[in-house]
Amino acid sequence: MRGMETTARLPEALHPGADNGFIWPIRVYYEDTDAGGIVFYANYLKFFERARTEWLRGCGIDQHRLAAETGALFVVRSTAVDYRSPARLDDVLTIVSRVERLGRASVDFAQAAWRGDALLASSHIRVACIEQNAMRPIPIPGDVHAALQRGAGKGPAAVSTAT
Amino acid sequence: MRGMETTARLPEALHPGADNGFIWPIRVYYEDTDAGGIVFYANYLKFFERARTEWLRGCGIDQHRLAAETGALFVVRSTAVDYRSPARLDDVLTIVSRVERLGRASVDFAQAAWRGDALLASSHIRVACIEQNAMRPIPIPGDVHAALQRGAGKGPAAVSTAT
Amino acid sequence: MRGMETTARLPEALHPGADNGFIWPIRVYYEDTDAGGIVFYANYLKFFERARTEWLRGCGIDQHRLAAETGALFVVRSTAVDYRSPARLDDVLTIVSRVERLGRASVDFAQAAWRGDALLASSHIRVACIEQNAMRPIPIPGDVHAALQRGAGKGPAAVSTAT
Amino acid sequence: MRGMETTARLPEALHPGADNGFIWPIRVYYEDTDAGGIVFYANYLKFFERARTEWLRGCGIDQHRLAAETGALFVVRSTAVDYRSPARLDDVLTIVSRVERLGRASVDFAQAAWRGDALLASSHIRVACIEQNAMRPIPIPGDVHAALQRGAGKGPAAVSTAT
Repeated sequence: MRGMETTARLPEALHPGADNGFIWPIRVYYEDTDAGGIVFYANYLKFFERARTEWLRGCGIDQHRLAAETGALFVVRSTAVDYRSPARLDDVLTIVSRVERLGRASVDFAQAAWRGDALLASSHIRVACIEQNAMRPIPIPGDVHAALQRGAGKGPAAVSTAT
Repeated sequence: MRGMETTARLPEALHPGADNGFIWPIRVYYEDTDAGGIVFYANYLKFFERARTEWLRGCGIDQHRLAAETGALFVVRSTAVDYRSPARLDDVLTIVSRVERLGRASVDFAQAAWRGDALLASSHIRVACIEQNAMRPIPIPGDVHAALQRGAGKGPAAVSTAT
Repeated sequence: MRGMETTARLPEALHPGADNGFIWPIRVYYEDTDAGGIVFYANYLKFFERARTEWLRGCGIDQHRLAAETGALFVVRSTAVDYRSPARLDDVLTIVSRVERLGRASVDFAQAAWRGDALLASSHIRVACIEQNAMRPIPIPGDVHAALQRGAGKGPAAVSTAT
Repeated sequence: MRGMETTARLPEALHPGADNGFIWPIRVYYEDTDAGGIVFYANYLKFFERARTEWLRGCGIDQHRLAAETGALFVVRSTAVDYRSPARLDDVLTIVSRVERLGRASVDFAQAAWRGDALLASSHIRVACIEQNAMRPIPIPGDVHAALQRGAGKGPAAVSTAT
């Protein structure tokens, strides 16, 4: 099952101390937990999305306005998450996010959730641009793409023009 | 990004008409949707879990009782989901689930969500057995493992004793 | 705090054995629970909504199609819920729903969640009809109102034409 | 349906500019919205709970530690919410919270969600103290009660010793 080991080499680049990741703190509330006494695994996708949204906002992109003005919507195409260690009620998590690849019509993110020095979960998430009525893939609008490129700010390794 | 293409060959084995998958229907309610007008992607993990839970129940395994009586808990170790096409309010989805590998301490599932003949999402999900107080991996209890093996019922290709 | 005692007299009319309530079963999954080991209280609103949706469907009303064809949307105006006893993982709940008042532009429901003979939660929920673009209250479309009236089917006590 | 109008006189006391309310900001993400394009009504209960949790934290009360050390758990006994106007993706809401009554074994909160000067939702929420194993009501532990009383800090009108 290949998808399971894809994040093995993530922790270094996504460590809270790394210099090129975007940091977003998340507090764990009752709503996030389940009867196992820990954060329900599906909720890490919400945490990762909040961090991506704030990263986009930091790039000057407001998704609600983007959709209203251009019809362009970012949708999640795939997610791969490894769960290492559980988070609990009242924990403060640090979400570290990094653009792995910026394509013409999609963006790949690597994201991780930490509690202090403990890696709790790591992920690869692909987000694609679609036209909201037809729900068809479209190129990321030019000014948005430029803003993402500035935000990713990581040189050619992180930014390509493929896909 | 390897995790992204792992489900490319899934559809055949996980087609609603395939003879060795477990079928569970899911109705889409408002709670499942988001402002994009479609099912929020993280919620497919809930749909897949409901189907795994019902498959376990069909194997004679009640997770609440299992935890209370043995301290054994099934937790999700990794998830990889590809999103192909959106589901909408009031849709009825068919979740097809299949055990890909039954290990000593974990189970790999392949699961897919369909609306009629349209594949909406497919996934690989690894579930591991832990002891609930220490949160440490443990072998799946013998009678539970035997029940899973009977439930998987697919011969050596699907069932191994590794991991 | 007046809102707190409004459901004191509900149990009789909303008992699973009562002859004029709509019955909908709900299974409790991990997604519904929290770290207290019980169903997260906000999730009863989801359970009640699923039951109302199925009651509407039983009246021949598909909300997705209704919105697409007429622009009419049912939205929740107010909720009052009393929590008596907790539900747990793997429980099967019975949701009993009853129209308390059918107005020109809104419907009041009384709803309760039971596990066998144990009342877990009871509620009053007001749903109003709005036009989805302007988000303004509108009268319930005539044929929909007639369908609701047939569905409520409880004589003048339950059905009025006020608001 | 009495529960429906109980919040009619709330706005004044719970206005963001009032001097005795606790203020907590909430950003709206995709996870909070539904296919109606607005925040799913049940999610206001999550917003209100986050604000109460932060208010408790400000009183020096960590619920996870409280449960671990004393077995005392705060659970929601009843909720009454009026929805006035919808919130949308990317909105920043202000949650205003105020203790209405501090009893021996329960606390009543009035809470409201605002977007700027617009009142979106208002609520009364009763929280009770229980012993987590037996799930039975118990008096709020003395030091916790004292901390709540200091936190409520509103004189005799807001704080009583009944119930």
